[in-house]
Amino acid sequence: MNRRITAALLLALAALCARADDGSGLWLPADRARDGMGTLDIARAEVEGIADVVFRIAAGALPGNAGPDGYAITRQDGRIVISAASPVGALYGAYHLQRLARTGGIPVEPDIRESPRYDLRLLNHWDNLDGTVERGYAGHSLWQWDELPGTLSPRYRMYARANASIGINGTVLNNVNATPQTLRPDYLSKVKALADVFRPYGIKVYLSVNFSSPVLLGGLDTSDPLDDGVAAWWAAKADEIYRLVPDFGGFVVKANSEGQPGPQDYGRTHADGANMLARALAPHGGIVMWRAFVYDPDSDDRAKQAYDEFIGLDGLFDGNVILQVKNGPVDFQPREPFNPLFGAMERTPLMVEFQITQEYLGHSEQLAYLAPLFTECLRSDTYARGRGSTVAAATDGTLFGHSPSAIAGVANIGLDDNWTGHHFAQANWYCFGRLAWDHTLTSDGIADEWLRATFSDDDGFVEPVKRMMLSSREAVVDYMMPLGLHHIFAEGHHYGPEPWYERAVRPDWSSVYYHRAGSAGIGFDRTSSGSGATGHYFSPLREIYDDPSLCPENLLLWFHHLPWDYRLANGLTLWDNLCLRYQAGVEAAREFQKVWDSVEDKVDRQRFLHVQERLRRQARDAVWWRDACLLYFQTHSGMPFPPGMERPVYDLDELKRIRLDLKHHN
Amino acid sequence: MNRRITAALLLALAALCARADDGSGLWLPADRARDGMGTLDIARAEVEGIADVVFRIAAGALPGNAGPDGYAITRQDGRIVISAASPVGALYGAYHLQRLARTGGIPVEPDIRESPRYDLRLLNHWDNLDGTVERGYAGHSLWQWDELPGTLSPRYRMYARANASIGINGTVLNNVNATPQTLRPDYLSKVKALADVFRPYGIKVYLSVNFSSPVLLGGLDTSDPLDDGVAAWWAAKADEIYRLVPDFGGFVVKANSEGQPGPQDYGRTHADGANMLARALAPHGGIVMWRAFVYDPDSDDRAKQAYDEFIGLDGLFDGNVILQVKNGPVDFQPREPFNPLFGAMERTPLMVEFQITQEYLGHSEQLAYLAPLFTECLRSDTYARGRGSTVAAATDGTLFGHSPSAIAGVANIGLDDNWTGHHFAQANWYCFGRLAWDHTLTSDGIADEWLRATFSDDDGFVEPVKRMMLSSREAVVDYMMPLGLHHIFAEGHHYGPEPWYERAVRPDWSSVYYHRAGSAGIGFDRTSSGSGATGHYFSPLREIYDDPSLCPENLLLWFHHLPWDYRLANGLTLWDNLCLRYQAGVEAAREFQKVWDSVEDKVDRQRFLHVQERLRRQARDAVWWRDACLLYFQTHSGMPFPPGMERPVYDLDELKRIRLDLKHHN
Repeated sequence: MNRRITAALLLALAALCARADDGSGLWLPADRARDGMGTLDIARAEVEGIADVVFRIAAGALPGNAGPDGYAITRQDGRIVISAASPVGALYGAYHLQRLARTGGIPVEPDIRESPRYDLRLLNHWDNLDGTVERGYAGHSLWQWDELPGTLSPRYRMYARANASIGINGTVLNNVNATPQTLRPDYLSKVKALADVFRPYGIKVYLSVNFSSPVLLGGLDTSDPLDDGVAAWWAAKADEIYRLVPDFGGFVVKANSEGQPGPQDYGRTHADGANMLARALAPHGGIVMWRAFVYDPDSDDRAKQAYDEFIGLDGLFDGNVILQVKNGPVDFQPREPFNPLFGAMERTPLMVEFQITQEYLGHSEQLAYLAPLFTECLRSDTYARGRGSTVAAATDGTLFGHSPSAIAGVANIGLDDNWTGHHFAQANWYCFGRLAWDHTLTSDGIADEWLRATFSDDDGFVEPVKRMMLSSREAVVDYMMPLGLHHIFAEGHHYGPEPWYERAVRPDWSSVYYHRAGSAGIGFDRTSSGSGATGHYFSPLREIYDDPSLCPENLLLWFHHLPWDYRLANGLTLWDNLCLRYQAGVEAAREFQKVWDSVEDKVDRQRFLHVQERLRRQARDAVWWRDACLLYFQTHSGMPFPPGMERPVYDLDELKRIRLDLKHHN
Repeated sequence: MNRRITAALLLALAALCARADDGSGLWLPADRARDGMGTLDIARAEVEGIADVVFRIAAGALPGNAGPDGYAITRQDGRIVISAASPVGALYGAYHLQRLARTGGIPVEPDIRESPRYDLRLLNHWDNLDGTVERGYAGHSLWQWDELPGTLSPRYRMYARANASIGINGTVLNNVNATPQTLRPDYLSKVKALADVFRPYGIKVYLSVNFSSPVLLGGLDTSDPLDDGVAAWWAAKADEIYRLVPDFGGFVVKANSEGQPGPQDYGRTHADGANMLARALAPHGGIVMWRAFVYDPDSDDRAKQAYDEFIGLDGLFDGNVILQVKNGPVDFQPREPFNPLFGAMERTPLMVEFQITQEYLGHSEQLAYLAPLFTECLRSDTYARGRGSTVAAATDGTLFGHSPSAIAGVANIGLDDNWTGHHFAQANWYCFGRLAWDHTLTSDGIADEWLRATFSDDDGFVEPVKRMMLSSREAVVDYMMPLGLHHIFAEGHHYGPEPWYERAVRPDWSSVYYHRAGSAGIGFDRTSSGSGATGHYFSPLREIYDDPSLCPENLLLWFHHLPWDYRLANGLTLWDNLCLRYQAGVEAAREFQKVWDSVEDKVDRQRFLHVQERLRRQARDAVWWRDACLLYFQTHSGMPFPPGMERPVYDLDELKRIRLDLKHHN
């Protein structure tokens, strides 16, 4: 074969490869770094071929209080200058430059000064030691515990790189439903191996711990936090960890929640438990992230419990404890109001926990871009200190001066080639990182960046697909649970609808607990004449939420039980509005398919077909949701479907028989 | 309980009962006749309470050649007078009066003169002796062979009454795929019992016979129609039958078709076979209906075979043979051109065979009102003797003077409470009878009658539901096989789509045989440069069908193989038109649901819910059809879906795995 033909063949092959993309590269260009490189070498590798860059690392390199992660990008004598107080800051600057190069180009005279809004920007992995992932929809766990520490998967460094590129600087390796085994010496040596890979990318490791570890692992008689032996056991365990991982981040604890052990088992408070652990970590600079996700079956309103249980503990936590609070008061629903603990605990650092993995938004089967959900929460005004006291301000240190500030997202990452199952679920990992860095970024801007870096810089692709992304979360809300409905998912796996579910072992694990539909109406009365949950919010929110005519319609049935013929602002009945919202969700899902088809020639074939197939299922399952919910609710409302709504195509009895063979972990 | 309360309770109960209707009453009022009544007594019972009626039966009661079934309705001295030449004519007059009373009222001065267009108006039951029904979707066979002749189900007389009320005067009791056992003496005594029940209602019985009966039942060595022993066996069998049933109608024969035996097995022609049987029946006044539905796997075009095989036999049949020809040249498809035998055999009486049971139009799961299909065929102009030579004229005796004239419909009746499975399938039984009586009636007029008699005389109900009925067959065509596509059904049961089916035991039992889709285009080239089937039609039809720019678009792919980018009259490509027709079908099915819901308060609950459930499935399955066909055809066209089309929600591979557990009989 002569050389010319070989070259032509190679070109053809390259073109073919360019048309097939498994999504494993995420939003990043080809990796030029190598195992074993230091942070600054990585930074240099990341900008290689992009620009002539000089790095300036010095304690005083940046004006003001930019902190260790900040950086500036300027031009001097024709060269790009990235200035930072630390190598990690320089690395973040390098990724910024790389992003600019991939999404519109580097300005001629850049004048960029950046520092993150949150000190700690964390992923929480709900990964189990057996390789399964709770609420994981992208394959099994990345962590190959069997092979560690001897064998290091190349994906560990790719994972660190991807996170660093969007500013994430910490990872909790294991499930909050934690097994004590994680703290065994052999597992700690595996953790050390991962930490060593992540360190050059500025990423610290953290662990979820089981509060009963002193008993279960240490052989003690008790795990009582006020027991000296217990405290000593934890202190020794912390010492052991820090000997292996000197920059270990700390612990996440799910205690006295959904069957997990905790200090209340010994008559102690959450503060007692958290502080005991915090004291074990404090000498090493570690922190405790204590989860506020607690509820028990006896309460009259699950949405009130975290607040009721923690509000009295404000001021009782040690300085290195952060209370980790889910964004909403129930559980990562498609839409919730913000958790009223935000703004309400002035003397305790609080951090938001988001769920990036789509437990309640269609798993990795459905397209739901979550930046609108994340920003909706972060920008909610708590009114804790008057107007402007947003959830973001209440958690990023600006409102109450807490430090360190932190934010966490439950990861959606697994062993799938494309990391997240659905190609568009990568955008949720991406936008979480970007918002953790800067919560003032817009959903639109982040989607734009991500699309250009991940798929194509062609406006003809970006604009329609971005519009699809931006409307996707609202579409999911519409066809799953509009107008403030929540938690009417199929039992266990939370993928499909099961609004009729009422035989749960606990009432608050049934759907009817949440929607309370009956002939008189629908919705959970959390007003002052109901459960009183509205009273957890500051004025004027409590008054707004308390009054159905003032309450935002997208939260109406969260706070109110209203008759089916109640009139909404558009003059139509609640029933008609409910029907038309479900219908709108179905139509939106159908529209996504058209949008995606319209950009077929602008996307590689592999990802095109993959996304096309998932959008089909999404449109199909949107109809399932609409039919299941409306046919069921109609048995209570007794009202006809409005003219604008397509009629159900399924029978309720048939839908009730559906049992998907899905677990809550993979 | 005092009497007033009892009366109130009874009234309430009656109201409740009125709200529940199992559809068993069909379009008829409560029956006032009794077992054993003669024809005229029945006629009197049917008009009891409706009007003061006097019957006048006399050979010369009617002017002109009204025939034995004709009648006149007039008023004289304040009384309604029904005049007829026979008691059966009077009975038909009584049902006419009853119909008027239920659908708008009896005119003050009626001046009605009616006589049927066809002499023989027959149902063909494809019922097997084991109680199953081939292509039966309304439960098992009405005929309780095990119990006959000793036990007579009350439904036998109800069946006769329903048929007589719409003018049907004959019934072929058993499947054309006939077992010889039907002619055993014990079964003939059962046939006699049924004939005795039907006789007062003017209904004759006929039987399908197996051509090999002399061998299989008689123990002869041959069934050769030219063998004297065979002829003698049949003559003796006819004598035996007529001794039991003096007005027995005759035989239907499916011979040398789909594995059935026939005269060709002995080197004889269809005419040889038919005439031999005809001579056995002639002494008794019986007839032979010889089916022209023949095809063999070696032909280049199944649509040509009946024509090719029978056209040369014109003039060779005895006077009491009628050739029974399916309406289209292939097989009861949602849309076919008329069979070119109609008009082409001047010296042979031909009768149309329609299929009332919806083998190819959604079984009894889907609403498809067939009067538009029946009239489309009957009013097709064959141009046999110039303009106006319609299929109706070519078969009702007016064009060629043949006698007797006949028409048959394959019944959709079974043991289901409502007789036909789908409540609206009753309308197909009804409209077949009405059109057999008078093929000039309109689909609209018949639907109007049927709806008022069956459901409600309320215009608010009739008008929207009638519009739905009138568009329903076209909707089915659209979402199953628009633009002249045909026979791309799932193998065996013919309910769902299977356009990819190609591994049939015979090529003409595969879907790809009929649609011939490939990268070059789609459709069956039956033009003069293709199979030449267009040449079977008279001018100008043969020229019209031969030219794609003249060919009616709804038959385009029946006659032509055209490139995907061929432009139709609307300027859009063939591919886009195909897509948009499928989409239109889906939307029509959805619209039916809305129409039905809109009349909820005007229908009894039982039938409302039953029809609502079926319409749901219809809309769902319309999407299945659209997705299966378009995704499959797209693998050939390689063209994108047009903007106006919703995107598929199923994956082709997943659809290909569907195997419905349906047989071709119940």
